[in-house]
Amino acid sequence: MNHSIANMRSLLEDEITRYSSTLKGTPNELYEPLSYMLLLGGKRLRPLLVLLGCDLFDENPDKALKAALAMEVFHNFTLIHDDIMDNAPLRRNKETVFKKWNSNIAILSGDALMIKAYELLTLYDKETLHDLLILFNKTALEVCEGQQLDMNYETLPAAIPEYLKMIELKTAVLLAACLKTGALIAGASSDNQENLYSFGKNIGIAFQLKDDLLDAFGEPEKFGKMPGGDIIANKKTFLYLRAFEAASQEDKMQLEQLYSSAQANESKVEKVMNIFMKYKAKEALETEMEKYFSEGKAALLRTSGNSEKIKSLLSFAEDLMNREV
Amino acid sequence: MNHSIANMRSLLEDEITRYSSTLKGTPNELYEPLSYMLLLGGKRLRPLLVLLGCDLFDENPDKALKAALAMEVFHNFTLIHDDIMDNAPLRRNKETVFKKWNSNIAILSGDALMIKAYELLTLYDKETLHDLLILFNKTALEVCEGQQLDMNYETLPAAIPEYLKMIELKTAVLLAACLKTGALIAGASSDNQENLYSFGKNIGIAFQLKDDLLDAFGEPEKFGKMPGGDIIANKKTFLYLRAFEAASQEDKMQLEQLYSSAQANESKVEKVMNIFMKYKAKEALETEMEKYFSEGKAALLRTSGNSEKIKSLLSFAEDLMNREV
Repeated sequence: MNHSIANMRSLLEDEITRYSSTLKGTPNELYEPLSYMLLLGGKRLRPLLVLLGCDLFDENPDKALKAALAMEVFHNFTLIHDDIMDNAPLRRNKETVFKKWNSNIAILSGDALMIKAYELLTLYDKETLHDLLILFNKTALEVCEGQQLDMNYETLPAAIPEYLKMIELKTAVLLAACLKTGALIAGASSDNQENLYSFGKNIGIAFQLKDDLLDAFGEPEKFGKMPGGDIIANKKTFLYLRAFEAASQEDKMQLEQLYSSAQANESKVEKVMNIFMKYKAKEALETEMEKYFSEGKAALLRTSGNSEKIKSLLSFAEDLMNREV
Repeated sequence: MNHSIANMRSLLEDEITRYSSTLKGTPNELYEPLSYMLLLGGKRLRPLLVLLGCDLFDENPDKALKAALAMEVFHNFTLIHDDIMDNAPLRRNKETVFKKWNSNIAILSGDALMIKAYELLTLYDKETLHDLLILFNKTALEVCEGQQLDMNYETLPAAIPEYLKMIELKTAVLLAACLKTGALIAGASSDNQENLYSFGKNIGIAFQLKDDLLDAFGEPEKFGKMPGGDIIANKKTFLYLRAFEAASQEDKMQLEQLYSSAQANESKVEKVMNIFMKYKAKEALETEMEKYFSEGKAALLRTSGNSEKIKSLLSFAEDLMNREV
């Protein structure tokens, strides 16, 4: 059986479709949002990392399929609740759950979806279940911490170290936990599990920095939308924090002023971008991103997985790093 | 060691206080609501039922303490989210989490509290953990279903069978699961576990009916507040549904009219109470309540637990049934 990444993706899509069709129950208002959310699509990066983590140690990725699904289900639970908190009307160009139904339904169906993630883990043998749960609970709490830090930064001042901690918790630890979950199911040694976790955490931070970069510096024709979304939303990403740190008193004031207004126009984006460029925020981000990526790479190379598969996982990560969308 | 109910209660209070002091972390906004909520107090009925379920089979209730805490933690998670959904400003005369902080913090700290409940279950051996989780996940989903049904009934018409299903899911299954959790930890046979579950479910429905009764017919000097809260809030409890079912066309219309107004005065309560009495809604409720109570009692008597402790558990349940507050 060929477990190429394309095959794993199709395995996952089938499994998510099949699973979504089982998410029926009474009352409808509780259950309909669950399959709606899961079928909105997405890159399915998290469950794919679970399968890849398992495959790396030459265990059949089918064995990790339910855990992969659990991680995707958990991720979708966080999206349902995050969308309420961020008051986000759209996700993947469709209405978010709280917009399509209402926020009470979104709170409660999110809760139900989290429980469904735990339910999927109980399909494993008791030994594996215990180990999966310890990792899952720790990660789930960290993701909550990351989301709260993110909300705090909307009003509180933050510096680069806190920002990096926030994206580590909100995004990177879940990617790390996905890889480790796969390794755990494959019966990898705890050293291998930790190395894979460290790989996931570091590339996760690098990916998020890449997101920040693309949002400001992406080429519209490749990026598919006009850059500057984070600037318009006054999101204090790495670029802002870096420019602010390095800026003259006058430029600091201008940045603060620009980020305190709700105006969303090209001139605001242009002014902010000029300050970003003046203080080489892009270059600083790239340096930081590469630092995390190479730390991640080093951790991956320390694992004693199948060496061909290590190469292929690395090139998968590089592709994600070099993406332009 | 004497495991009287009073001792168990004090064991629980100590454990909840100790545990609450461990609920610290960064960011504060995520963690502070957790101990705030847990320390608001309450009857601690759910964790007590876990200990009683364990004690019934002559196992040391200490062994069930972490699971008891998990059930109380889970219950408090549901309260944090329910208070947002119900827009309730007060709980036990203190501000609810979403009022004291805000609804985003309440959503997220509720999520964190649910994860903490799962974390407590992982303290058990792997065999027990698996069995506890299966029961816990099933129950947690049912509680979500019950809450959604309750929200639906605010706008949709309901009849008595649906109302009974709603209170079964929203309230009774958690009490049942608490007792079964204790029995499971004590190593009781699955027959004994099921009988205890059935006891809990049936008395749980009876308790909720008693709540409905007290809210309308409680004596103010004993009840500690003026009766009629459910009527003022237009809550379609058993009494309303029963009176509505039996009422003449004219009285039906009057009931509907009274329950469609937001006015909160004594004359409204008086008019509704007159219709309740005219159609003997209180008597119908008492009959139904006694039916559930005796079904519960019969299930308890089928268990092969310590016979002295069965007696004492039954008298504990009777005291709860005969309460006037």
